[in-house]
Amino acid sequence: MTERETNPDARLVIVSNRGSVTFSRNDSGEREHSRGAGGLVTALNALSRQRSEAVWIASAQSDEDVRVAKETSETGESHEVEGLRILLVEHDADAYDLMYNHLANPLLWLVQHGLYDLPYSPALGHETRRAWEEGYLPINENFAEAVAHLLESSSEGGEPIVLVHDYQLYMVPHFLRERLGKSAFVSLFVHIPWPEPEGWRILPGYIREGILKSLLEADIVAFHTKGYARSFIRTAHETLGAEVDEEEGVVKYEGREVWVRPYPISIDPNEFEELARSEEVLEQEETVKSLPGKLLLRVDRMDLSKNIIRGFHAYDRMLELHPEMKGEVTFLARLQPSRGDIPEYAKYAGVVEKTVQEVNQRHASESWEPIVLSMEDDFMLSVAAYKNYDVLLVNAVRDGMNLIAKEAVVANEKNGVLILSESAGAHEELGEHALTVNPFDIDEQADALYDALIMPDDERARRAKSLQETIRSNTIEEWAEAQLEDIAAYREWGD
Amino acid sequence: MTERETNPDARLVIVSNRGSVTFSRNDSGEREHSRGAGGLVTALNALSRQRSEAVWIASAQSDEDVRVAKETSETGESHEVEGLRILLVEHDADAYDLMYNHLANPLLWLVQHGLYDLPYSPALGHETRRAWEEGYLPINENFAEAVAHLLESSSEGGEPIVLVHDYQLYMVPHFLRERLGKSAFVSLFVHIPWPEPEGWRILPGYIREGILKSLLEADIVAFHTKGYARSFIRTAHETLGAEVDEEEGVVKYEGREVWVRPYPISIDPNEFEELARSEEVLEQEETVKSLPGKLLLRVDRMDLSKNIIRGFHAYDRMLELHPEMKGEVTFLARLQPSRGDIPEYAKYAGVVEKTVQEVNQRHASESWEPIVLSMEDDFMLSVAAYKNYDVLLVNAVRDGMNLIAKEAVVANEKNGVLILSESAGAHEELGEHALTVNPFDIDEQADALYDALIMPDDERARRAKSLQETIRSNTIEEWAEAQLEDIAAYREWGD
Repeated sequence: MTERETNPDARLVIVSNRGSVTFSRNDSGEREHSRGAGGLVTALNALSRQRSEAVWIASAQSDEDVRVAKETSETGESHEVEGLRILLVEHDADAYDLMYNHLANPLLWLVQHGLYDLPYSPALGHETRRAWEEGYLPINENFAEAVAHLLESSSEGGEPIVLVHDYQLYMVPHFLRERLGKSAFVSLFVHIPWPEPEGWRILPGYIREGILKSLLEADIVAFHTKGYARSFIRTAHETLGAEVDEEEGVVKYEGREVWVRPYPISIDPNEFEELARSEEVLEQEETVKSLPGKLLLRVDRMDLSKNIIRGFHAYDRMLELHPEMKGEVTFLARLQPSRGDIPEYAKYAGVVEKTVQEVNQRHASESWEPIVLSMEDDFMLSVAAYKNYDVLLVNAVRDGMNLIAKEAVVANEKNGVLILSESAGAHEELGEHALTVNPFDIDEQADALYDALIMPDDERARRAKSLQETIRSNTIEEWAEAQLEDIAAYREWGD
Repeated sequence: MTERETNPDARLVIVSNRGSVTFSRNDSGEREHSRGAGGLVTALNALSRQRSEAVWIASAQSDEDVRVAKETSETGESHEVEGLRILLVEHDADAYDLMYNHLANPLLWLVQHGLYDLPYSPALGHETRRAWEEGYLPINENFAEAVAHLLESSSEGGEPIVLVHDYQLYMVPHFLRERLGKSAFVSLFVHIPWPEPEGWRILPGYIREGILKSLLEADIVAFHTKGYARSFIRTAHETLGAEVDEEEGVVKYEGREVWVRPYPISIDPNEFEELARSEEVLEQEETVKSLPGKLLLRVDRMDLSKNIIRGFHAYDRMLELHPEMKGEVTFLARLQPSRGDIPEYAKYAGVVEKTVQEVNQRHASESWEPIVLSMEDDFMLSVAAYKNYDVLLVNAVRDGMNLIAKEAVVANEKNGVLILSESAGAHEELGEHALTVNPFDIDEQADALYDALIMPDDERARRAKSLQETIRSNTIEEWAEAQLEDIAAYREWGD
């Protein structure tokens, strides 16, 4: 980062739907805040640290968030919390519901992960159009308005850099350009998979083209893997006829040049090392260590993309093929309830629980429960499990990255074996040292479970070491720096 | 076809699972045969006509077919029927069932059309492996054995040309090369869509690589559209790391060069003109003409790919938005029962029938049934409907080509409007003159139905004329010739 370095005074604005803090009032009526957890928060914090003047814009979620949003919209100033400058945006509640629960989460999520049962769903129509026109578009415009307002209120510091994040905010680049023209650098980072062109074509014309055109108003469009970047480039070519260069990662459209680049997201290994040593985690380890036999672990949101059901079927099959393993292993499934208001998700959760009951009934003994289902929202318990697993199962149907694979490997102290779906984004980096599985193949997963459980210690150690080294060679700091380097290069190129 | 012409003495062997004739015994115990219907039969007949010495190899289906197969396997000679030389292959019944009902039709068909509900299915495993090893492979080897035997029994006529057809026979090129080496030209024609690389990756490793490697032992791999050819090339690159040239349509693998080419299949327009004038069709027209109002038509197998349910929902929606159309149109749905032994298909047929009842209950009057469901196996009735439709709905989720669109347009006498899914293979040729719809968008299809029903006569005439001309400019004869020209060019290049 010598001569390509971007102007260190450039103002950095990060825009994402969820922020890193949520405000509330305590019993005495005083304002408090809690830090959000999760990979994106760690990642965007790392980006914020790159600039002292960075501001993070996010949706107001709680009632107190709304009050904070109202205050800052009056003063025009952001709110400083734990060294981060936060600006919360208040949305119309109905519009937000349409954006979040009717457009982004069912439709875009399911299309981008390829999870629809196409003979029957989706059934698009006027409801889709309404969610788009009265939900997705106004919420995105509201965000762009907040960015423009912030940048107008302080014009010092040169050309601003606006980093927009994820599938809730695809139209922000478009509304930003309407307000700011070319006076800002804009990137959009897609944190979920990008489907191949035919998958994208499921969307109605006004969405499929609207989103692509907005993304191509950004200067850089970023993904977690080379594969998603390539799929995006092909989609731009086949949907809009844009001129593309797959090798160079460039899309040319309406006179602009857009760079399409992979930046595999990562974690902060130090954070997990500290957590692993913390008192809360040490306490939770008692629970985890009391489970009989080796520890087989999965940690996931209860999501259609995570392949939870086939994971249990594979375990069932492994016990059927190797009955000597009964009682020698416990499958701890930490499943965080998610999106229960969406019918597809409610149905899925029901099938997951039924499958657990069936497998347990089939194999349980008096002293042994084959699958322990654990749905409490307790991150410390998850970290305690990370430390102690012998085998970690990440068999997602599709997954943007899957940061749990990285977190767990860094925290693990048992040379645990990683079983990894070839369709998780993390597979591009970690596949070489994991046991790779086809997420649709029950018997292949059953074999991988068995192989992992009986793997000799030296092979376990060798694989665990390589996984650790790979993750430590690309931490969240490198992720943030790589983006800012490319931004500097893009701006130099553009001059 | 002057100097590039292939050796006219070259022996031509066509291999497909189903043949053009089925044998039976009549009441007097005499052997009879009936000609098969359907687009593939017309197409392969056209290929056969290119060479007087062509032989068509197909599976014995009926008991009498098996007797014919036994006789010919003793004499080593093919059977001449209506100017075609037929060779029937007898298979082990269990192996055939595994190939047809457990591997080709559920798995390959659903993967290639992208019809699985991925959070739940497929659940691949040992049953899949058994269907592959004990069904698909032996049946394909049996076919290759029959081809090799035929070619050995008569070595006159120079280097033979073997044209293998469709997704039941993907492994035939591999088994042919084992027996014949490079002494024959081999092509394989895929008549269904080829999915994008991620779609293909659903298959277990031994199938996804096994099939690709076999196809790349052919000299030419053929598809109906440029899009499928491109997807195949990308799949070969991403699955096997083959060197590819998308523009040129070439895949290089293990020292061989394979041409990957689109030949959009077509029909014999004369056949449909003659049929349209036939006595049987004239009789059936009475039924069709007795339906009240304009005629909206669909003709399909009851298949998950055909999008029958959304078609009825779109019609329902159109009647809701335009109640003045009630009684002014009848939707005749000619649906041929199909693959009822496959659970996904049985379920789908049930939902289709339920949907018809619901829509009819919602809108029917005493004198008008909104949807007339017609499931008799009567091709003449379909042709009678072809002649008389005002609007033809072809809204497939995905479809290799959809020959019904071509047949119906050629037979139609009403300047009928074609509503065509952008995801049907036929859309590459006919989309320009049809009303294009996104198969997942109910309201777009409802609007297209309405627009088609009220379209002014001059626009109907203009579109119908362009559709007719497009189809007549690429008949089944051109389809066959284009392939033989490329075969000649390939052989010249290879010398």
